[in-house]
Amino acid sequence: MAQVAGKVGEEQNMVGKKSASQMADRSTPLMRNHWYVAAWAEEVTRTPLRRRILSDDIVFYRTEDGRAAALHNRCAHRSFPLSNGVIKGDRIVCGYHGIEFNADGSCGLVPSIQSAPRAMRVTSYPLVEQGPFIWIWMGGPEAVDHGKLTRQPWFTEAGWTHVKGYFHMKANYLGLHENLLDLSHFPFVHGAMVGKPEHAEARPKVSVEGDVVHSSVLHKDIALAPEYQAAASLVSPVDRLSEQYVPSPAIHVGKAILTDSSPTPQTHIRYIIHCPTPETQTSTHYFWAIARDHVLDNAKVDAESHAIGAKAFNEDKEVLEEIEEVIARDERTDFRERIISTDEGAIQLLRAFARMAKNEDVEGRSSRS
Amino acid sequence: MAQVAGKVGEEQNMVGKKSASQMADRSTPLMRNHWYVAAWAEEVTRTPLRRRILSDDIVFYRTEDGRAAALHNRCAHRSFPLSNGVIKGDRIVCGYHGIEFNADGSCGLVPSIQSAPRAMRVTSYPLVEQGPFIWIWMGGPEAVDHGKLTRQPWFTEAGWTHVKGYFHMKANYLGLHENLLDLSHFPFVHGAMVGKPEHAEARPKVSVEGDVVHSSVLHKDIALAPEYQAAASLVSPVDRLSEQYVPSPAIHVGKAILTDSSPTPQTHIRYIIHCPTPETQTSTHYFWAIARDHVLDNAKVDAESHAIGAKAFNEDKEVLEEIEEVIARDERTDFRERIISTDEGAIQLLRAFARMAKNEDVEGRSSRS
Amino acid sequence: MAQVAGKVGEEQNMVGKKSASQMADRSTPLMRNHWYVAAWAEEVTRTPLRRRILSDDIVFYRTEDGRAAALHNRCAHRSFPLSNGVIKGDRIVCGYHGIEFNADGSCGLVPSIQSAPRAMRVTSYPLVEQGPFIWIWMGGPEAVDHGKLTRQPWFTEAGWTHVKGYFHMKANYLGLHENLLDLSHFPFVHGAMVGKPEHAEARPKVSVEGDVVHSSVLHKDIALAPEYQAAASLVSPVDRLSEQYVPSPAIHVGKAILTDSSPTPQTHIRYIIHCPTPETQTSTHYFWAIARDHVLDNAKVDAESHAIGAKAFNEDKEVLEEIEEVIARDERTDFRERIISTDEGAIQLLRAFARMAKNEDVEGRSSRS
Repeated sequence: MAQVAGKVGEEQNMVGKKSASQMADRSTPLMRNHWYVAAWAEEVTRTPLRRRILSDDIVFYRTEDGRAAALHNRCAHRSFPLSNGVIKGDRIVCGYHGIEFNADGSCGLVPSIQSAPRAMRVTSYPLVEQGPFIWIWMGGPEAVDHGKLTRQPWFTEAGWTHVKGYFHMKANYLGLHENLLDLSHFPFVHGAMVGKPEHAEARPKVSVEGDVVHSSVLHKDIALAPEYQAAASLVSPVDRLSEQYVPSPAIHVGKAILTDSSPTPQTHIRYIIHCPTPETQTSTHYFWAIARDHVLDNAKVDAESHAIGAKAFNEDKEVLEEIEEVIARDERTDFRERIISTDEGAIQLLRAFARMAKNEDVEGRSSRS
Repeated sequence: MAQVAGKVGEEQNMVGKKSASQMADRSTPLMRNHWYVAAWAEEVTRTPLRRRILSDDIVFYRTEDGRAAALHNRCAHRSFPLSNGVIKGDRIVCGYHGIEFNADGSCGLVPSIQSAPRAMRVTSYPLVEQGPFIWIWMGGPEAVDHGKLTRQPWFTEAGWTHVKGYFHMKANYLGLHENLLDLSHFPFVHGAMVGKPEHAEARPKVSVEGDVVHSSVLHKDIALAPEYQAAASLVSPVDRLSEQYVPSPAIHVGKAILTDSSPTPQTHIRYIIHCPTPETQTSTHYFWAIARDHVLDNAKVDAESHAIGAKAFNEDKEVLEEIEEVIARDERTDFRERIISTDEGAIQLLRAFARMAKNEDVEGRSSRS
Repeated sequence: MAQVAGKVGEEQNMVGKKSASQMADRSTPLMRNHWYVAAWAEEVTRTPLRRRILSDDIVFYRTEDGRAAALHNRCAHRSFPLSNGVIKGDRIVCGYHGIEFNADGSCGLVPSIQSAPRAMRVTSYPLVEQGPFIWIWMGGPEAVDHGKLTRQPWFTEAGWTHVKGYFHMKANYLGLHENLLDLSHFPFVHGAMVGKPEHAEARPKVSVEGDVVHSSVLHKDIALAPEYQAAASLVSPVDRLSEQYVPSPAIHVGKAILTDSSPTPQTHIRYIIHCPTPETQTSTHYFWAIARDHVLDNAKVDAESHAIGAKAFNEDKEVLEEIEEVIARDERTDFRERIISTDEGAIQLLRAFARMAKNEDVEGRSSRS
C-alpha cells in the first residue's frame, strides 16, 4: 500500500492539505465509463420515467416483454422531451409530431412522411437489471464493459433479504464517498445509536488494489444495543468486522460481520450498499440498500433496518448539502481542506478517482450517438 | 423557390440536420429593426405599464391627448424605474428625485435645479397604434421604417370583428414561428377538434419571396365539425384554403378561406394572427388574434372562436416551453435537430431569419439614444 | 475643495455623465481594510450567529468571559459550516467531526487523533465592541488599524440615548451612500413628514478632507412639525444645522443641531448613523441608529424616533432595491448615469471611494490566513 504522501511533519497525525492535482474534487469531470444505478426496478414501467444522470436528460420505460429501456430524452427532430409522450408497444411516441422511437434509439415511424429514416435516431443507453437495481452505462457504446458491473448476489440469491431507500442530495457525489470511508464523524453526526464511542478513534486498515480502495476495521467485544432487534438472537458481546471497498465511482460496498460470544458462535452478515449516481456536478441521486442473511421474514426487523439506515444516511446527506452550500458561496479560490490521518481511506479514494478521471480523459470522452 | 438544401439522400423525405450557420436558432441575436407588438391598446393608459421587450425595460403610458408613449424605463439620473413614478400631464415623473420626462424622452424638469438640461434624456421608442395593437420600433431612430409595418385592415375596417389573447411564454420566439408553419403536429398536440387526420400528412406549398416565406394548403371536401358554430350557415363539405406568410420576425399571418358546397357557394374568411414579441432570448410575449368577416355580432361565436384559439395556442406554448427547458439543460453542444421534408416552411423561415439577422449585424446595431 | 470635474457646460447645473474610471460604482471591488458593523451586540451570544460580510461566510459567538469572536464559517477539515456546531467553553465545535476551534482560529482538538495540529486553523476576524455595535476588521491581520475606527461617544457616554434598526437590502451599498448625501429626493421619496419643501432645492456646502467628504446645510427659521414630540419643549421656529461626513465606506455620520427661538435658545443634538455593511456586491446589511441628547428617558419619544427612522430609511431601501434590479437587467453596457449639481456630495464621495479602492488594490489585497 502506498504511503499517504504529503505528510508535512508538524504532528504525525496531520498530513497537509488536499492537493487539487492529485485528488478528485468537485471540479473533476464526472466519469462516464461506469455503470451507475439509474433507478429502482419498480420505478421503470410502461409509463415514461424522466431522470437526469451525469447531466444527461434520460427517459426510461419497459418494452412489452418487460425489458427496461433508456433513451436520451430529447426528440431528434424538435427536441421535445420524449418523457412527455406515450409508450406504444415497444416504442416511445413523441408528443409533438408523433415520431416513434424503438428501445435501441432507432426510429420506428415519422407519421408525416410515413417512413422511418435511419438518420432520425436518439441515443440509447445500455441497461442491466439486477435485483432491485437498474444499472445504466453512461459511456459510449463502444466502451461498454460488463466486467465493470459489481456483482451483488446478496440481492438476487436465496438466503438474503433487503431494505432500501433513496435521497435526492444537493451535493457533489464525492463528499458521500469520503463520508462513507470515514468512521470518525459517527459520534458527532449520528448520535447515540450508531455513533458508538469506539468509532471516533477507530483506525481502519486501508489498502489499495489498482484503483479499488479497501478499508476494514474490527471492533472486538462490543455490547449489542438493546434496541437492535435484528440481533436479538446473538449473545452479547460480539465482534464486529466491518469491511468496505469502492469498486467504482458508482458504488460503495460495506460488509458487516457480527460474531457473537455464544459457545457455538453465530454469525450475522449484512451488506450496506451506497450508490451515489451524479445527477449533475452539484447534485446526486443517492440510492442505498441493506441486505442481510438472517431473520429473513420479519417485517419488524425490516422496518428497524430501514429506519436505522434512513436516519443515519439522511444525517450524512444533510451534512453534505450544508458543505456544498458553503463551498458554492466561498469566493476564495485558495482554500484547501486539511487532511488528517483518519482520512486515509478517503484520501486514497480521491487519488484513485483522480487517476481514473485522468485516464478517462486521455482515452477521450466516448462519443455517444 | 429555392430547393431545400442539405438533402443527404438516404430517404427522400429526410433532409439532414439543422445547420447553425444557415438557419437562425436560439443563439441568433434578436432582430431590432422591426415593429413588434408591444401591448394591447387598452393596456396603455394614464398609469405606467412596465414591459420588457428585446431585453429593454420599457415604460408605456398615454399623454393627455391619448397618444401612446414608450420610454426606456431607467431614469437618466439614478436609474430608478420610471414606471414606479406617476404621469403628470404629458410627462412621466420619476419617483426618486421628481425628474420629469416628456413623451419624446427629453427632460421637462429637474426640480432640484429648476431647469431641464438637454443632456438629461431617456430613449424614447416610436409607436404605432393600429386597431387592438400597439407596435413598437426596436431599432434606432435613424432606421425607423414605416414600410415594414404589416397592414392589417381586418382589424380596423368595417365588416370585420375579432377576438384576441396573450400568453407569456418561457421560450425563444423562433420555436413558435416553426410551429406555426408546421401542420404535422396538429393530431399529436391539438387532439380531436383542430388536429384532423388530414393535417398530419398535408404537404403545404412553400415559396419564398425575398425574405418572406409563404405557405399554402388546400383541403378539399372536408366535413365541418358539428361543434363549429361560426360555420353553422355553411353547407358541408367545404373546401378550406389555408394561406400563411411571415412578413417579419414579429408576425405570422394566417388566412383561412372556407367555401361551402351550397348551390351558390358561400365563403368565410378568417385571419389568424400570431405576434411573438421576444421579451428576452428565452422568453416571449405571445399576442394572438383571430379576425373574421362573418357572423359579426354574436357573442357565442366570439366565445367559441376565442376558446378554440386559446386552447390550441396554449397547447403550442406548453410544447415550446418544454423544449426550451430541454435545450437549456442539455450540456451537449454537438446536438443538431433533424429536419424532414414536412419542415420545409419552417426551414425556409429559419434561413430567411438568418439572412435578416446577418444583414442587421452588418448594417450595425442601431444606436438608440 | 476640488471643483466638480467634467462640467460640460450646456446648463450650469448639469455636470455630465458619471465616469466609471473616476468614480466608484457597483463593479468596484468591496474594500476590505476597514471596520464594518458586523452585528448588534445583543445578536452575538453563546449560540453561533452566521452572517455573510464582504462575501465571507462568518460565524460569531461569545467566549465564556463575554468577548465576541468571529471565525471563517468553514471548518478547515471538510468545509462544514461551524455555525451548525455548538459552543463549548471558549471553543466552537464542528458538527461533522467534532473538531474544536479557539476564538483566535487555532485548533483546540481533533478528537479522532486526540491532538490539536497547528496547521488546522480557520481565519479569525478582529472585532471591536462599542455600545450597540460590534465592528469587524475585514482586511488582513497585518493591516489592522484601530485608528480607522470611528469614535462615537454618543453611543457609550452618559447624557445620550438611542434607538436603532436593521434592514437587509438587496442592493450594492454605494447607492445608500449616494442617497444619504442627497437631500433633493426627500419630497419625492419621504413624503410629508420628512420631505419638507426646503429639501428639494437645498444646496449643501460640500468639502473634502483627504478622502472624507463633508456636507452641511443650515435651514433657518423653519417650523417644527407639530407631531414631532421630541421637540415639544422647543419654541418654533428653529434653525436646523445638518452636518454629514463619511469617514469610511462603512459609516455615514449625520448630525442635526436644532436651535430654537426662545429668549434663552435651547439646543437639541441628534446623531443619525447609517452603517451599510456589504454582504455581497449586490446586497447590504443596513444598520442604523439615532442618538439624542434630550428627553433621555421617554419611551414615547423613543418610539417616535424609531418610527420616523424606520419609515424613511425603508423608503430609501426600497428605492435602492428597485434601482439594483433595473441595473441588473439592463444589458446595455454604454449607459452612464447623468449627474447634476445637487449630486455634488455624492460625486465627491464616489471619487473618494474610487481613490481608496485603487489604493487598496495597489497595496495588495491582504491575505487572510
